[in-house]
Amino acid sequence: MANTGHITLPAGFVAGATHCGLKTTAQEDLAIIAAAAGAVATAIVTTRNQVIGSPVRWCRQILPLGYGRTRAVVVNAGNANTCNGKRGDRDAATMAKLTAGRLGCGPAEVLVCSTGVIGHPLPMDRVREGIAAVGSRRSARSDAAVARAIMTTDTRAKSAVVRGRIGGKAVTVAGIAKGAGMIAPSLATMLSFITTDAKVSPAALGRALRAVCEGSFNAITIDGDRSTSDTVVAMASGAAGNASVSGGDELGKFTKLLTRVCGQLAEAIVRDGEGATKLMRITVRGAASDADAAAAARTIANSVLLKCAVHGGDPNWGRIVCAAGRSPATVIQDKLTCKIGGVTVMRRGASCPFDVKAAEAHMAGDTVEIDVNLNLGNGRYTALTCDLSREYITINADYHT
Amino acid sequence: MANTGHITLPAGFVAGATHCGLKTTAQEDLAIIAAAAGAVATAIVTTRNQVIGSPVRWCRQILPLGYGRTRAVVVNAGNANTCNGKRGDRDAATMAKLTAGRLGCGPAEVLVCSTGVIGHPLPMDRVREGIAAVGSRRSARSDAAVARAIMTTDTRAKSAVVRGRIGGKAVTVAGIAKGAGMIAPSLATMLSFITTDAKVSPAALGRALRAVCEGSFNAITIDGDRSTSDTVVAMASGAAGNASVSGGDELGKFTKLLTRVCGQLAEAIVRDGEGATKLMRITVRGAASDADAAAAARTIANSVLLKCAVHGGDPNWGRIVCAAGRSPATVIQDKLTCKIGGVTVMRRGASCPFDVKAAEAHMAGDTVEIDVNLNLGNGRYTALTCDLSREYITINADYHT
Repeated sequence: MANTGHITLPAGFVAGATHCGLKTTAQEDLAIIAAAAGAVATAIVTTRNQVIGSPVRWCRQILPLGYGRTRAVVVNAGNANTCNGKRGDRDAATMAKLTAGRLGCGPAEVLVCSTGVIGHPLPMDRVREGIAAVGSRRSARSDAAVARAIMTTDTRAKSAVVRGRIGGKAVTVAGIAKGAGMIAPSLATMLSFITTDAKVSPAALGRALRAVCEGSFNAITIDGDRSTSDTVVAMASGAAGNASVSGGDELGKFTKLLTRVCGQLAEAIVRDGEGATKLMRITVRGAASDADAAAAARTIANSVLLKCAVHGGDPNWGRIVCAAGRSPATVIQDKLTCKIGGVTVMRRGASCPFDVKAAEAHMAGDTVEIDVNLNLGNGRYTALTCDLSREYITINADYHT
Repeated sequence: MANTGHITLPAGFVAGATHCGLKTTAQEDLAIIAAAAGAVATAIVTTRNQVIGSPVRWCRQILPLGYGRTRAVVVNAGNANTCNGKRGDRDAATMAKLTAGRLGCGPAEVLVCSTGVIGHPLPMDRVREGIAAVGSRRSARSDAAVARAIMTTDTRAKSAVVRGRIGGKAVTVAGIAKGAGMIAPSLATMLSFITTDAKVSPAALGRALRAVCEGSFNAITIDGDRSTSDTVVAMASGAAGNASVSGGDELGKFTKLLTRVCGQLAEAIVRDGEGATKLMRITVRGAASDADAAAAARTIANSVLLKCAVHGGDPNWGRIVCAAGRSPATVIQDKLTCKIGGVTVMRRGASCPFDVKAAEAHMAGDTVEIDVNLNLGNGRYTALTCDLSREYITINADYHT
């Protein structure tokens, strides 16, 4: 996953990263991704948390509709610039202004993202040096540094790339992401940056990104916490030369490419969840509605008890149906059927004989498939999560702010 | 806590316990608590989970209003009799019938509770022997066996007793509980049985129990899971000889006694949470409504990230405000103020200098007080939970069904 793509593969983008001292390690901690001639479209999806970081507030100010046109995004890891009051807001604006100065555009064309510890003001002297020092290249090597720069407790960089044809032209969609890891020890923040050379209208890119996030980044959970800084940005350079996509079949095709990139990144985030040893794919089908299916799948995915059972490789279906039953979704016990790795472990609300060895063999692998059929309608949703290990506790209990 | 009270201290009750082989240890696993001459009132509160055990279904059948008059409750640990289909329903009815036979009453006068592994039919030969063998005494020693009989992974028995005067007569309210521990490795189930010699009308007892549960047993969480078998039963013998209480000041007095017993038991359950080393008391005040306060307090109490931070003794207020912000309660970031152990660690949405040593010293103790003021209204709620340790993972990952 880590080496399948990089952020400037789509034509029209440059990027660079540097270490300016926000992380305690020597790893890169500040990056700029820019559309060299400006983006023809930019879309953004931000956290639903009611407490937000100053960078999220800045991004919403410059893209109040969730889409528009920007030139670049500046991102740092090591400090989330959250809960720093008016000073935090000023610092986010300054990051945009400094980046704009380097690129020769206006501050309102620069998105800002920060991830890391909260409640500590940004050391702006270092940030200033970092923005002055960061390069603007189009190379796999430089892009690898950008992917590293956004990492916090992620153990590996995450990137994805897909290629397709839109309006008869070859187009590329690439993305990087950082996961729900945290920096000693603050909030789990999910960031993703996606670039494409396809020509797409701002409104269409906004629509596509919102829809795709629902089934990818919004379908994953590590521990049920939603960060104050979660942000997904998509920028289109238009360099592929296709006729601008604003709807219809071509937008459908583009949305499919975007879905594959976001899906790969979302899965990579879960596989690299703190202390994770297994990916859990939880599909709820037969729900009264898609919303019900999503509610049940998310409740199951957030069951600490189930995540422990999966860590231990135990086909404990009781914890699955218990979570389904307490979810906001309508559940009728006598209709509920449950499979683990294709093995029916519980049928129509009651235990049934099953091949325990087969279920255990499936659970010994690195991907555990859980399928719950509510047998009430056609609603369907798949959520991704990971198991819960002692390592998670160690990561989150033993560090100190 | 464990030795402060026992279940037959209120006049008019007998109880007994035996080991019939439902637990793998030699500990008692079946008990009967009976009002010797029948209860003047019985009230019950059961789980809100949509998937329920056969015993819960039985109890709702015989007390469809949540209150009425019963003679006894028969309870077993080691097997939850849940998800066993029609056979499970028949077995629960048989337990009531066998118990009724011993007591000389009708089966519809006997409540049934079961906790333990789910999806395994009850070994009814053992249950039958157990019900035949169990004694009916009024002694502290026998009551201690009853309190042990309902335990699963609880590390200690939990009981409470309070005394007061109702209508000029001395009355006693006693209770036992088992916690959100689980038996290798099924669902966390909370059971509590409360006895009193006060004379209370069935409807008044029902009303009082529902109200008291909201602020006690419904205010605690170990891991956010709500079991398929959670049940609280209160039985009044009327032996104190007071004029029957059906409302007014006397019901208020009785409700206060009940509140103290349930509050003590709820706290004891949390302190004995799986792997718990600290109790966390989370008070949300200044919410737009009590419902908002409860929603925010419960979301904070279920934050896995925060529970890890508390385990590590870290005053990580970022995780508190993050959980508040993603809760269903209305939160305005700039109004939010947060204290840990009385130390203001975050004021009006922004970090503030605070005495880190004092906050850490508070967190080194066995009770951590977290206070969040939303500064929006008068809504208030207190939730109780415990920290999350490696031991929790060990308990829940390493056992096998």
